[in-house]
Amino acid sequence: MRGVVLHAPGDVRVRELDDPKIIEPTDAIIRVTAACVCGSDLWPYRGVEEVHDQPMGHEYVGVVEEIGSDVTTVKPGQFVVGTFVAADGTCEICRSGFPSSCVDRVFMSEVGTQSERARIPHADGTLVATPGMPDADLIPSLLAASDVLGTGWFGAVAAQAGPGKTVAVVGDGAVGLLAVLAARQLGAEQVIAMSRHRTRQELAVEFGATAIVTERGEEGVAKVKELTGGLGAHSVVEAVGTQQSMRQAIGSTRPGGHVGFVGVSHDVALSGENLFFSQVHLLGGPAPVRRFLPELIDLIWQRKIDPGRVFDLRLPLEEAAEGYKAMDERRATKVLLTI
Amino acid sequence: MRGVVLHAPGDVRVRELDDPKIIEPTDAIIRVTAACVCGSDLWPYRGVEEVHDQPMGHEYVGVVEEIGSDVTTVKPGQFVVGTFVAADGTCEICRSGFPSSCVDRVFMSEVGTQSERARIPHADGTLVATPGMPDADLIPSLLAASDVLGTGWFGAVAAQAGPGKTVAVVGDGAVGLLAVLAARQLGAEQVIAMSRHRTRQELAVEFGATAIVTERGEEGVAKVKELTGGLGAHSVVEAVGTQQSMRQAIGSTRPGGHVGFVGVSHDVALSGENLFFSQVHLLGGPAPVRRFLPELIDLIWQRKIDPGRVFDLRLPLEEAAEGYKAMDERRATKVLLTI
Repeated sequence: MRGVVLHAPGDVRVRELDDPKIIEPTDAIIRVTAACVCGSDLWPYRGVEEVHDQPMGHEYVGVVEEIGSDVTTVKPGQFVVGTFVAADGTCEICRSGFPSSCVDRVFMSEVGTQSERARIPHADGTLVATPGMPDADLIPSLLAASDVLGTGWFGAVAAQAGPGKTVAVVGDGAVGLLAVLAARQLGAEQVIAMSRHRTRQELAVEFGATAIVTERGEEGVAKVKELTGGLGAHSVVEAVGTQQSMRQAIGSTRPGGHVGFVGVSHDVALSGENLFFSQVHLLGGPAPVRRFLPELIDLIWQRKIDPGRVFDLRLPLEEAAEGYKAMDERRATKVLLTI
Repeated sequence: MRGVVLHAPGDVRVRELDDPKIIEPTDAIIRVTAACVCGSDLWPYRGVEEVHDQPMGHEYVGVVEEIGSDVTTVKPGQFVVGTFVAADGTCEICRSGFPSSCVDRVFMSEVGTQSERARIPHADGTLVATPGMPDADLIPSLLAASDVLGTGWFGAVAAQAGPGKTVAVVGDGAVGLLAVLAARQLGAEQVIAMSRHRTRQELAVEFGATAIVTERGEEGVAKVKELTGGLGAHSVVEAVGTQQSMRQAIGSTRPGGHVGFVGVSHDVALSGENLFFSQVHLLGGPAPVRRFLPELIDLIWQRKIDPGRVFDLRLPLEEAAEGYKAMDERRATKVLLTI
């Protein structure tokens, strides 16, 4: 089969790879309908993480082709959305709502899903079947649920976005934009999107942002405070993962408020003193997407939300290299690969 | 009046100070019955914070002598317990349960309460009257409620200690020991105290600890995991404030679990990556003691808890210097000053 590998930093190739096979009785093999390029794929692409001939991709939707003997919740022929972390669904951590920290988790980025087929470990804890074969226009939104929507949603839930709350979102990538959508869906009264890119601002407003803050760092914090009676937002979603964005997120939150941080942290060191005296609740990490997936699929299936709008570039699998390049150069917010 | 000042690091003196006066109509003046030396008083004592002739102390119980014209909830002659942060009780942050981050807060350590009298700003938001004049044997416990009990209690609440939960407590000072007591009162099933001091271990067991872990650092984390099916505790209270203790606390918590950190952080830098992949809830800061004070006073008044047991040295105010020395040399866990 054809699949994407990162040969070396900056060098994306589409190659002939071995077809995946059932290894464990809990596996499924899916034919991938669409996959995408994630902001987190850019870390190895930019050489921040070492890599050599790494199969890429961890977001995917597709059709089940084969299941292992222990799989009971999906069957061949079904269209499925999968999460970017495979989880057994049965351990105490999964049952407590954190399948992305499952004791037997497998990061799908280690498996690779930017390919014609993929082996999905822990199929029962990882895949959710849609009510039927989706219309073509629903595919991007279902694909978004696999990671960026689920991650933005977790950010908003971790930040306790809800009725009566003012929510600020740091980061205007696909995850940040979908955290705006999530905050509104969860009933937030005000949603402040922090962005300085016009097209992303527009999408944030379409997704429900009630205010845009273009300032960053301390100036951004001051602006959020100005919009919240001097106190800071009740809920802040951090969707970047840098030192500056974390400081901006914590600084924008009122004492007793909640920060949900979902940008994969790189070289971030949080001052204990600052955290102590900020007195904010903090929760982050790889999003437990599986917890939200049935609800997200339902919202998409009923066309109540359209998260697929974050994809602003669609390319066939063979042109994956151009997709990485466009993301890296910020010419695209999010790239969908059709397979 | 007589009062304690820290003349310079390591140099505690009892001096003649000006009698306090009502300044704001929301002030009260109290005659201090008892005060204490806090672990956090040791930071300036050890020269970690700069100081010169600083009035000391922020924990206190006493009798109201005079009130400002706007004070309505306490009156002269009443015995009161006060919190270590004065708060207006009316701002949005106070009403949301975080009076220690009140927009008009005054840290009582800036006022000083190791003295015969003290001015209490925001009396209505800071003082709580007891049902009557307490028996002498209740004074230590009521005094503990002013900070160490309230802080340990907040740590346990922030860590979401409760029925069915396994709670680990890092730190065996007065706050850590009272976090053990709090965790049990809140219904925790198992309480693991991390301590290597025999007398403190014994008090932890009296307060409800079900297991003692003497190991520290990575070994301590491994031991807590061994006691919790390999997963880590549901709830961990951090009551020290160092880099090692914070790492130990976060490492001892299962994914999706809760860390309440109440040790005042000094030179702590938390790795964003570690926090991200730990996927724990984090909440800390100066304890919002006022939120818990009515309940704590009630439990003490009914003799259901005896937090005053943490005081293992009692001295008259004039001997305050010896109290600091005993705490600094770890000859005493917690020192009560009678006035």
